[in-house]
Amino acid sequence: MDLKAYTIDRLDRVKKNAPLIHNITNFVVMNSSANILLALGASPVMAHCPQEIKEMTALAGALVLNIGTLDDAWVESMLLAAETANRHHLPVILDPVGAGATTLRTDTVKRILNHATVSVLRGNASEIFALADAEVRTKGVDSSLALSPEVAEAARTLARQTGCLLSISGEKDLITDGERTFRVSNGHPIMTRVTGLGCGLSAVTAAFCAVEADDRLLACTAATAFYGLCGDLAARTTSGPGSFFTAFVDALYTTGPREIETGLRVEQTS
Amino acid sequence: MDLKAYTIDRLDRVKKNAPLIHNITNFVVMNSSANILLALGASPVMAHCPQEIKEMTALAGALVLNIGTLDDAWVESMLLAAETANRHHLPVILDPVGAGATTLRTDTVKRILNHATVSVLRGNASEIFALADAEVRTKGVDSSLALSPEVAEAARTLARQTGCLLSISGEKDLITDGERTFRVSNGHPIMTRVTGLGCGLSAVTAAFCAVEADDRLLACTAATAFYGLCGDLAARTTSGPGSFFTAFVDALYTTGPREIETGLRVEQTS
Amino acid sequence: MDLKAYTIDRLDRVKKNAPLIHNITNFVVMNSSANILLALGASPVMAHCPQEIKEMTALAGALVLNIGTLDDAWVESMLLAAETANRHHLPVILDPVGAGATTLRTDTVKRILNHATVSVLRGNASEIFALADAEVRTKGVDSSLALSPEVAEAARTLARQTGCLLSISGEKDLITDGERTFRVSNGHPIMTRVTGLGCGLSAVTAAFCAVEADDRLLACTAATAFYGLCGDLAARTTSGPGSFFTAFVDALYTTGPREIETGLRVEQTS
Repeated sequence: MDLKAYTIDRLDRVKKNAPLIHNITNFVVMNSSANILLALGASPVMAHCPQEIKEMTALAGALVLNIGTLDDAWVESMLLAAETANRHHLPVILDPVGAGATTLRTDTVKRILNHATVSVLRGNASEIFALADAEVRTKGVDSSLALSPEVAEAARTLARQTGCLLSISGEKDLITDGERTFRVSNGHPIMTRVTGLGCGLSAVTAAFCAVEADDRLLACTAATAFYGLCGDLAARTTSGPGSFFTAFVDALYTTGPREIETGLRVEQTS
Repeated sequence: MDLKAYTIDRLDRVKKNAPLIHNITNFVVMNSSANILLALGASPVMAHCPQEIKEMTALAGALVLNIGTLDDAWVESMLLAAETANRHHLPVILDPVGAGATTLRTDTVKRILNHATVSVLRGNASEIFALADAEVRTKGVDSSLALSPEVAEAARTLARQTGCLLSISGEKDLITDGERTFRVSNGHPIMTRVTGLGCGLSAVTAAFCAVEADDRLLACTAATAFYGLCGDLAARTTSGPGSFFTAFVDALYTTGPREIETGLRVEQTS
Repeated sequence: MDLKAYTIDRLDRVKKNAPLIHNITNFVVMNSSANILLALGASPVMAHCPQEIKEMTALAGALVLNIGTLDDAWVESMLLAAETANRHHLPVILDPVGAGATTLRTDTVKRILNHATVSVLRGNASEIFALADAEVRTKGVDSSLALSPEVAEAARTLARQTGCLLSISGEKDLITDGERTFRVSNGHPIMTRVTGLGCGLSAVTAAFCAVEADDRLLACTAATAFYGLCGDLAARTTSGPGSFFTAFVDALYTTGPREIETGLRVEQTS
């Protein structure tokens, strides 16, 4: 599988199909996630009211659930949307923002995982491994940045246990389904100084999954690498997080086959 | 009526009077709508709590209702604010985001229209014509971009039926009160790749209406043309939606008589 | 006390310690406040759900309460968070957005002040003096921009009455604990044309307070002067509020000892 050719093809599909991405996400990133999806070529919608969830999710190509600013009412909406997405065989991307930091967040993620089929869990290592049992957790968070062989093994175990694809962001990103594992080296440290860029990757992952019928592991990998590449390109011409974000949104809009061929840095490690 | 001179005059009034615009709007665009109004010279306030609605609306020069991220509680606040605005003879601008996409959205717009006097309905063709009866709807959404004579006729019919001014955004914009109709050719396609720019136009329309005692149709037309002109200007120097938005907000702040004289493209078609 | 050396030292501490700032703030500024804190070097978290407030506040180095888009449920969360912050001896920064404009806002601020110990009240003169009794209020709002000796005296009286540090933004900023008073001349008029910059200063004030064990009056003063200096620097290279905000976030990230030595403009006036 040539990941570069694959990424070029699926990016093209996103731009041609403009899949509707239904986001039930946190207040901090609603604007940036919408702009990130629009720049990419997808169509965002934010809707959280129970009375319209079923209709809205049914219109969508993928669903993003993000627990960044939780609330009882919003959790109910997320559960209903996840059910609806499952019924329509839509990919569900769950971003467990802050899992591990508070009981409510960790429990809410587990509740969603128990209630519905989640396609992709996307977060940083501490959030993802907060969902693991003690043994796996210890190995997983041991070194969230280095992505040592131990971390990769812990991730594969957790992927098999949850039945979700895992997309773990860090200095290098790791994407695994429990068998195959990809490592992405694109991305730039300044991305950690802009709010909502992790959440934005969850949205972009949803857009790539929406145009992929067969192999969502590849879709997650392509989304992650493309997103990181846009970060690499934006960082080249900017000197702070304000101008970086502006350039990053531009890069999501302008980056195409030529930059992907030259700049994508992905390897399969298992 | 010289639309250019009119627009120059009313823009000046907005900057001098800095009308307070009360927004009950969606979470996605609260920040961008506030920045758009501030750049224009108006004073935004966002407030949705029933306990303060009456006091806040009474302080305002215009009210914007936007249903982009609906919720039961927020609908009640919108109804109360619309009532209050009516009592104080303030212009009420309603942006029916996503009307037609879900029953809740279409019904909420109809509920507001039945409950209070709405001065201006501003949205794209599919949202606006979602509120029409079947016959008018079919003609209206037939060709939302081209604004054919049939669409214009359908819009005039709907304006007469609802008693609202209609401001319909598209490749060309159409503004009508059921008798007179204006067509605006300003604006740039990249505006569809930035979230909240339609919602921002609703806010700017409110600001122009707040400084117009007599002819709100002209105020809507001037707002739409000026807004599109700022888009034209911003698109000239930028290459993606991130930098475009930054330049657009700057343009709202800097665009004056000279650019309006040269660049405004409005014609009266009926 | 050399305020420049102090500001350089505390900015360095913020960057080294990356204090977690818990914000219960309004919807308009959640994104910008998070980006402002990240650019500065602090770690923002937004969380308002009662079930997680105690855990989240306990993890933080400071708490920001901002009443910009009030709601009954959010007020309860603010009260609980303030209590928790008090128990952990964390600085609490209260931004009384719109106090004086509606009864709900004025009353909510008073309710929070009665319920818990607030370290810093930060707002503009009309918001701050809305909390004063009639006599002090009249003197305080008399001239919000000029910061005349009468205003400074009214501020000192209110600081003593409330037991809070007051940080009052205007053309010049005034910071007082009722005895000592500092006046900051940094800052640029275009900052009033960008939404959320006052709220952002409340967040930055929290970050400086989080790394100051002894003298929070100095921390507030350093935060205000540094923030205004970043505004001065950003205004030099930009021509509208859109590009200004981008440059301002960059300046929060890049401004260091050299710029502080040259540009900080603070004087102690009592």
